[in-house]
Amino acid sequence: MRLLLINPNISDSVSDLIRAEALRTAAPGTEIEVLTAPFGVAYIETRFEALIGAFATAQLAAEHHERYDAVIVAAFGDPGLTGLREALQIPVIGLTEAALASACLLGQRFSIVAISQRIRSWYLETVQAYGLDGRLASIRGLDEPLDIGHVQGNQGERLVQLAERCVDEDGADVIVLAGAPLAGLARSLRGRLPVPSVDGVSSAVRHAETLVALQPGHAIRGSFAQPPVKPNRGLTPELARLLNRGSNT
Amino acid sequence: MRLLLINPNISDSVSDLIRAEALRTAAPGTEIEVLTAPFGVAYIETRFEALIGAFATAQLAAEHHERYDAVIVAAFGDPGLTGLREALQIPVIGLTEAALASACLLGQRFSIVAISQRIRSWYLETVQAYGLDGRLASIRGLDEPLDIGHVQGNQGERLVQLAERCVDEDGADVIVLAGAPLAGLARSLRGRLPVPSVDGVSSAVRHAETLVALQPGHAIRGSFAQPPVKPNRGLTPELARLLNRGSNT
Amino acid sequence: MRLLLINPNISDSVSDLIRAEALRTAAPGTEIEVLTAPFGVAYIETRFEALIGAFATAQLAAEHHERYDAVIVAAFGDPGLTGLREALQIPVIGLTEAALASACLLGQRFSIVAISQRIRSWYLETVQAYGLDGRLASIRGLDEPLDIGHVQGNQGERLVQLAERCVDEDGADVIVLAGAPLAGLARSLRGRLPVPSVDGVSSAVRHAETLVALQPGHAIRGSFAQPPVKPNRGLTPELARLLNRGSNT
Amino acid sequence: MRLLLINPNISDSVSDLIRAEALRTAAPGTEIEVLTAPFGVAYIETRFEALIGAFATAQLAAEHHERYDAVIVAAFGDPGLTGLREALQIPVIGLTEAALASACLLGQRFSIVAISQRIRSWYLETVQAYGLDGRLASIRGLDEPLDIGHVQGNQGERLVQLAERCVDEDGADVIVLAGAPLAGLARSLRGRLPVPSVDGVSSAVRHAETLVALQPGHAIRGSFAQPPVKPNRGLTPELARLLNRGSNT
Amino acid sequence: MRLLLINPNISDSVSDLIRAEALRTAAPGTEIEVLTAPFGVAYIETRFEALIGAFATAQLAAEHHERYDAVIVAAFGDPGLTGLREALQIPVIGLTEAALASACLLGQRFSIVAISQRIRSWYLETVQAYGLDGRLASIRGLDEPLDIGHVQGNQGERLVQLAERCVDEDGADVIVLAGAPLAGLARSLRGRLPVPSVDGVSSAVRHAETLVALQPGHAIRGSFAQPPVKPNRGLTPELARLLNRGSNT
Amino acid sequence: MRLLLINPNISDSVSDLIRAEALRTAAPGTEIEVLTAPFGVAYIETRFEALIGAFATAQLAAEHHERYDAVIVAAFGDPGLTGLREALQIPVIGLTEAALASACLLGQRFSIVAISQRIRSWYLETVQAYGLDGRLASIRGLDEPLDIGHVQGNQGERLVQLAERCVDEDGADVIVLAGAPLAGLARSLRGRLPVPSVDGVSSAVRHAETLVALQPGHAIRGSFAQPPVKPNRGLTPELARLLNRGSNT
Repeated sequence: MRLLLINPNISDSVSDLIRAEALRTAAPGTEIEVLTAPFGVAYIETRFEALIGAFATAQLAAEHHERYDAVIVAAFGDPGLTGLREALQIPVIGLTEAALASACLLGQRFSIVAISQRIRSWYLETVQAYGLDGRLASIRGLDEPLDIGHVQGNQGERLVQLAERCVDEDGADVIVLAGAPLAGLARSLRGRLPVPSVDGVSSAVRHAETLVALQPGHAIRGSFAQPPVKPNRGLTPELARLLNRGSNT
Repeated sequence: MRLLLINPNISDSVSDLIRAEALRTAAPGTEIEVLTAPFGVAYIETRFEALIGAFATAQLAAEHHERYDAVIVAAFGDPGLTGLREALQIPVIGLTEAALASACLLGQRFSIVAISQRIRSWYLETVQAYGLDGRLASIRGLDEPLDIGHVQGNQGERLVQLAERCVDEDGADVIVLAGAPLAGLARSLRGRLPVPSVDGVSSAVRHAETLVALQPGHAIRGSFAQPPVKPNRGLTPELARLLNRGSNT
Repeated sequence: MRLLLINPNISDSVSDLIRAEALRTAAPGTEIEVLTAPFGVAYIETRFEALIGAFATAQLAAEHHERYDAVIVAAFGDPGLTGLREALQIPVIGLTEAALASACLLGQRFSIVAISQRIRSWYLETVQAYGLDGRLASIRGLDEPLDIGHVQGNQGERLVQLAERCVDEDGADVIVLAGAPLAGLARSLRGRLPVPSVDGVSSAVRHAETLVALQPGHAIRGSFAQPPVKPNRGLTPELARLLNRGSNT
Repeated sequence: MRLLLINPNISDSVSDLIRAEALRTAAPGTEIEVLTAPFGVAYIETRFEALIGAFATAQLAAEHHERYDAVIVAAFGDPGLTGLREALQIPVIGLTEAALASACLLGQRFSIVAISQRIRSWYLETVQAYGLDGRLASIRGLDEPLDIGHVQGNQGERLVQLAERCVDEDGADVIVLAGAPLAGLARSLRGRLPVPSVDGVSSAVRHAETLVALQPGHAIRGSFAQPPVKPNRGLTPELARLLNRGSNT
Repeated sequence: MRLLLINPNISDSVSDLIRAEALRTAAPGTEIEVLTAPFGVAYIETRFEALIGAFATAQLAAEHHERYDAVIVAAFGDPGLTGLREALQIPVIGLTEAALASACLLGQRFSIVAISQRIRSWYLETVQAYGLDGRLASIRGLDEPLDIGHVQGNQGERLVQLAERCVDEDGADVIVLAGAPLAGLARSLRGRLPVPSVDGVSSAVRHAETLVALQPGHAIRGSFAQPPVKPNRGLTPELARLLNRGSNT
Repeated sequence: MRLLLINPNISDSVSDLIRAEALRTAAPGTEIEVLTAPFGVAYIETRFEALIGAFATAQLAAEHHERYDAVIVAAFGDPGLTGLREALQIPVIGLTEAALASACLLGQRFSIVAISQRIRSWYLETVQAYGLDGRLASIRGLDEPLDIGHVQGNQGERLVQLAERCVDEDGADVIVLAGAPLAGLARSLRGRLPVPSVDGVSSAVRHAETLVALQPGHAIRGSFAQPPVKPNRGLTPELARLLNRGSNT
């Protein structure tokens, strides 16, 4: 099985974190490739940055998907996810939805611990778009300036404290450690938190393997069937080919 | 006052419909410009097409916004709207939110009449993202193949029938005629429908004028303040300048 | 265009504030008239006071609507609004729904800053009735005794502090300055608040002008068609005539 | 124990139905009085008619409440109910909330069978205001012209058919027979319906007796404390005295 | 009229509190019997304990229901309630739903004051299952170790303080004193709280009497009709007879 | 890894279907054991039957859990699941929540195809308890009498037709084939349905393996920590030991 993880950001250091956690998680026989967005920002905190990351992700997916069994959008907030799920005929999974799926199987209400204050609104809207706000206890974020490649090391204790407040003040049953820069943190905090904790990368790799194994089929009707073919213009050949369903543009 | 309407699609014929309705609606002294996406698809029916349209819109907005008092994202579904609202320091309005704002001032529950069956899921998710699904009576769509430039003429009677079913079977108090290809239809159906009807272009032009006139100020804190400056790469100079808040990249 | 604003309270000083802000807002050629309730209370904070204000508003609207293009119910909480929307065949707009419509076009979540603690429950129920509680960040109110005609001057600084807490603690993207006694405050606070702010009177005047301009038609079927004619008794001639649809009682 | 039932409509024939069912229901020792609105319409189907009925109810309650242990607003839709609950220091109950309370104790989801098509929107908004729309299976109404005093006799079979469709097509566990003109119908249909059924008058009488018996106390803080005293004008002496909390106007 | 109250816990001291409050509440002529679970835990705080209490309640109800007019599940959280409502052909009421029904007739938003911190999640899920979370202001609980038979005496002042915070900080209009160990507390606190308060036992006894008196009928179709007969094994003769609808197993 | 699947029903034929599908799904090295309830009914369609199945499941889990890495409650509706999740310190998963987790990763809205009409209410309440009703398109059920061991063979075509209606009439993006008697059907219908489909057993086995692999930790605080120790009586030694946290009873 071959999984493609697309980092919608330009940060190679974050891609390294993603790759390391994906490799620790993957089943024997699962091959992992991580691609980094050729354009965009260092990390996505806002709706506008997500819009850019979504397009970069779509571009990479269009170019590379054919050699893979599933695609993972490897940023919290899942930029471009539902669009790609229409366009591709293989499973596409996002870090947020994967982490929330794990969290929902471990408790009734979850909190999200995030890397900044600003990022909380974007995450809230992501949870709402999945219809899961009824199970969201809270979203708490760091309020220090970020060194994106070293947030786990520098802010580990502070992240634990935020998680404890989610449990004791907000009623969380499960902690979601959010954001690709925290990939692997759930693993290294094992035994430190008073409730189960999950992260996005490990959840996404496992759930992608599951969807490939279950062979649920893909949509040929309904809202996730491929978009109806219609004229297009000005796109890369790969995107155009995807929209044209493989025929030449 | 200068308003920029960005058609996120590549259809010049739809841009013409948008321009004509915008000019019919605008107050004396309001200047209207309509730009057409340089890349993308003929019309947006799905989440994937919207993702592409959002990026095209962002690109055009980044290039042109500085000479305008407000920007209108001129496709139903409002691709890229909330992202642009963060990035720009002038009002940004979408056709859907504008039409829904009008509809909510005319009745309690509204229905959306749309140009295709497939488009309904995307519209439903748009309404849900605005938290207005509690006021949505139904979404009904044409089920004929589309000739996008002539849908008003060819399908006018059928659209009236759909609207009547929304009123009589679904309990709609107001009809939203959805999609830029229907721009101006509310005007030409005046007196034909049993409840008030609104469209997106005329609503958006009026509401944009209102927001400019009210001078509500722009966000310097909160989730619609401009994204925090951070490294970026590979973007057009205009997008990069927007992210860098005007400083050189 | 002629707009009738009905103050559902007996406070002439508040009617003056309403008139002044309406005149500052109205487009050239829009005529403004403000009427004050002949019976009722000094300002509406509760459901019972709103019930009285609704009837006073209905009475005034029945007497005077025929000479106007639209009616504005000029109290927050919009007493009697949806009833009047059925009875009259011209647009009827309330301050709350108008301010919320503006706020929703400026951000995702709004807070309401109000003139008293007690008034918050009534406002909450108003927002819920519009199905917009999903976008409500908070309602905060002054806790000092009120001098209704001078609340802007005496409490201006305190209102700014409440607004800042709405942004920083509650996650508001937009501030709604609520209550006719605050009419014009958004204008005078321009540049003082960290997010966009709107008030009810200016929003209502603009949106009323918009609805008149759009000519959306009025309901002849559905729940906002005029009430079916049926026997009535003991009403003023104007109310009776409205219920009898213009025929003599 | 003395209960005051206020019919917000002018129909003496409906007051007779209400009185008869209230007397059949009341416990030994409970005295029943039914008053008919001195002004208003024959029956309330719409928001505007409810606004008028609310004021008439408030007027009667202000005049007469002092000699009673509880007040019942005896029209479905409960016009004026929450306002009166603030103003009076005794329990105030509406037919709708009473019937829904009974229904919720008998099953998970209820349907409302009503006397007209038009009335459904007003009832829907009433259920929503009580936060019970999650338990509402459907609202179905007669579509024949109404003879308000004889609807039970003329339309009995049709009402049974509507109830059966609520059960079999809409998933109702309980039927609410709505509207004062149907007072007593649940009793006469006993054994005819496939699920439990309740009506408003009998439920309201029983629940009023319960609240009087439980002596839960009344609010001196919170949103149902009496409205803060403030200037008023132009009201009847009884309403003014209520607002002035018993001091002279 | 004969009412059976089943205490799903093994605490005889709590059964005594339940019996005493039921007797104080019941109408003349109503006979009260309280049974204590033969197996289970001292009091129910969690979902797992509720699961056990539900089965014990079902067992007792199956054995004893035939001699009664209604059954009351006498623990907050209502373990087994909706199941029993299917199985029995008489009204079945739970303490929580009964207290909430009373609370909803006294105000718009209620808070629950409970005997422990841990119990709050179970209560929250109970309120959500009834679709009433829109009217829930808060749930607050004691944080001291519990002496279950003497909580009213030892913790009375603390419970009053919690109730006051519910009103002043959370916006509660009504206080629900939750948990069978608090049976009778609402009565003894009369006049001490700033808003109306209700408890479960007195509410359940009154509402059970009401449902018996209204004779609403029982379900023969829909989701509360008796479960379809199917093979069963290993149950007590009483449970088997109930499932077999009275025929021998 | 060792997984324990507990069939809460007494049907050995259904246990055989569960075991077969679990074995087809499990990863190499995963051991599967399926236990059948020693008491209960042939299959669970109602709340009362679920109450019994929950207790039987708890009993079996208490006896056997110590030799396993995770427990699966192998009936749709997940009887006893959240209770067991508190009591055990290993992952516990239900068929419904597992299938919904898979479905949510494959599309936005799912429909449930079930084995009877009656079972739909119980399933609806299960989906609501998980806060996922916002993503539920519909629940459709067979209306023929059931032969529980052969429903797949006898009713396969009818189940496909129901699924197609869910897609075309209800807007489903994914089909959940519900109920342990349908275990394996998703696999045998591969390629027959127009959208992805999932079932409960295969999803639960995969997700259980995932949770064991992720080692998220277990709750020592919050609402899924083990119930506080308190007196208990009359339980089997295994249940008592679980409540006493391993100390002797």
